[in-house]
Amino acid sequence: MAEKPIRFGIIGCAEIARKLSRAITLAPNAELSAVASRSLEKASAFAKANNFPPSAKIYGSYEELLDDPEIDAVYVPLPTSLHVKWACFIAQKKKHILLEKPVALKVAEFDKIVEVCEANGVQIMDGTMWIHNPRTHKMKEFLNDKERFGELKTMHSCFTFAGDEDFLKNDIRVKPDLDAHGALGDAGWYGIRSILWAVDYELPKTVTALPGAVLNEAGVILSCGASLQWEDGKVATFHCSFLAHLTMDITAIGAAGTLHVNDFIIPHGEKESSFTTVSKSGFNDLVTGWAAVPSQHTVMTDLPQEACMVTEFARLVGNIKANGAKPDPKWPRISRKTQLILDAVTTSIAQGSKPVEL
Amino acid sequence: MAEKPIRFGIIGCAEIARKLSRAITLAPNAELSAVASRSLEKASAFAKANNFPPSAKIYGSYEELLDDPEIDAVYVPLPTSLHVKWACFIAQKKKHILLEKPVALKVAEFDKIVEVCEANGVQIMDGTMWIHNPRTHKMKEFLNDKERFGELKTMHSCFTFAGDEDFLKNDIRVKPDLDAHGALGDAGWYGIRSILWAVDYELPKTVTALPGAVLNEAGVILSCGASLQWEDGKVATFHCSFLAHLTMDITAIGAAGTLHVNDFIIPHGEKESSFTTVSKSGFNDLVTGWAAVPSQHTVMTDLPQEACMVTEFARLVGNIKANGAKPDPKWPRISRKTQLILDAVTTSIAQGSKPVEL
Repeated sequence: MAEKPIRFGIIGCAEIARKLSRAITLAPNAELSAVASRSLEKASAFAKANNFPPSAKIYGSYEELLDDPEIDAVYVPLPTSLHVKWACFIAQKKKHILLEKPVALKVAEFDKIVEVCEANGVQIMDGTMWIHNPRTHKMKEFLNDKERFGELKTMHSCFTFAGDEDFLKNDIRVKPDLDAHGALGDAGWYGIRSILWAVDYELPKTVTALPGAVLNEAGVILSCGASLQWEDGKVATFHCSFLAHLTMDITAIGAAGTLHVNDFIIPHGEKESSFTTVSKSGFNDLVTGWAAVPSQHTVMTDLPQEACMVTEFARLVGNIKANGAKPDPKWPRISRKTQLILDAVTTSIAQGSKPVEL
Repeated sequence: MAEKPIRFGIIGCAEIARKLSRAITLAPNAELSAVASRSLEKASAFAKANNFPPSAKIYGSYEELLDDPEIDAVYVPLPTSLHVKWACFIAQKKKHILLEKPVALKVAEFDKIVEVCEANGVQIMDGTMWIHNPRTHKMKEFLNDKERFGELKTMHSCFTFAGDEDFLKNDIRVKPDLDAHGALGDAGWYGIRSILWAVDYELPKTVTALPGAVLNEAGVILSCGASLQWEDGKVATFHCSFLAHLTMDITAIGAAGTLHVNDFIIPHGEKESSFTTVSKSGFNDLVTGWAAVPSQHTVMTDLPQEACMVTEFARLVGNIKANGAKPDPKWPRISRKTQLILDAVTTSIAQGSKPVEL
């Protein structure tokens, strides 16, 4: 890595920023350069607790950090409701943006962010980490294999975790003025993304919320699901919840094979992770067993997936900085599609599970 | 086993009857006593190919077998459209009935069957084998465990297999005049049953077909799914298909734990089978891994599950014969509930995914 590392600033000291601070430290082409909080003390304590290098700068306001010419890129762990304001501001400061998910309250907001990013030539990428895990690439190889998997027919994705009493009362993810999308934004985002990932980001024709969404008193979604349909007959469902035990599954079924993964968003462990596949199975003669049984594939992860994400983002930023390359439009494009479906689910829930055409 | 074994007759030489012949042979309290086909040659060849004992009788008509006073119970692998006629007839002959699934074309038909069974004091049980696997009991122990699993919150079940060209053109399961329920009856039956099993057979309030059902030219379902809702907020989905690779999953998620099984209907192998559970998991401090990871549980199966089914059925029949016990109403009750939901899915599909109240 001959290039200079990309210098990251973080605005806001959210829990998730701890994980990203470590990821930036681990990424070979990134440098933890600054942190800002609305309180200087908080920023200072955060830097200390998260092994910022002595050279890192501590700011008592986001604006100060964004005015620092020695910052190349900014990680934004702020609540969703603040994304449009701060992401546009960051882009205007010509800094590249690693933006937590969900990227916006509505796709129109995200379009505004992307417009400002394009106008200022900055890269934007959302904080979906698992997409960058080497295991994910291995799983996609299987899904792309016409022989072993065939045409995708159906898929189910699920991310649930059980928020405790304090979470369900006080977390920003259950507050309508902060992360207003609740479980759909925090957990369903991954289910939607996993489905898009499996279908090469082809948007479905129709999105229909499943009956039985659970909302809190403020109208924030605590649990919901949706069914997605494509023109060619493919169907997919996902479920997300703050009310059920930790589960994160993808089951993707093709004409010729099946993929299972049960920890797709955050692998059970950091060093290696696995998935199972089975192809062209059927029953034995008496239908008392399977002709072929699933096999497990384990993938080593040299860098944690969030560090892979930072590395990829920093690589793109480095390419822009050093070579005058254009920002990669793939990342905002897939963020937008994810948000578009998220919006459709919200609309369908509000309309009593009416199908929403995309 | 001091009692005399229960003497089984089989009417019809369907593929599935081969598996059941072996199961009856393996069950310690059952005896393979007769087979009937509309062709004597076919019945004779079937008996030879399936290791019937020399004492077994071969009949060239179903009626003759049913007139045989030395037959206690009849296994009925006939197409669904023939169930009501033959099951009623068998019950009138005071023979106990092991009836293939789906039990009827409509719940009203099954009610008629049950009425005749009750009037004649005969046991009826449907041919859902996996329910009798010792693994299934072990899985239910987990689901019933308030500490390790808690209240069931959501569940997904799936059974798909890829029918080949010949199957999709000629199999009785794609013919409107034979097994008219298609994939819903043949595969969806298991999904519905698995959901009922998990919720202690509490009927849902609402059944809504998922958009995107695939029907053949004759109107038989090749692929579909549904969403089920209960009064207390529980939700479940299932998917079934003749068009996607072999997959048979249950994912059941409680407030405190998760159960996964990927071969619930027919275990990968006959001698042992497994499932995984995880309880009270969450993330580690930095949210880079799981606090508790799933563990696999393996259950030995001394008798194949279909032989466990025959054994249980024969036990009930023996109890009626030897002790004048009443038929166990549990079995027709759960068949009826499964059929009721199956009918609701069919209705919902016909009405463009309109919710059907039960």
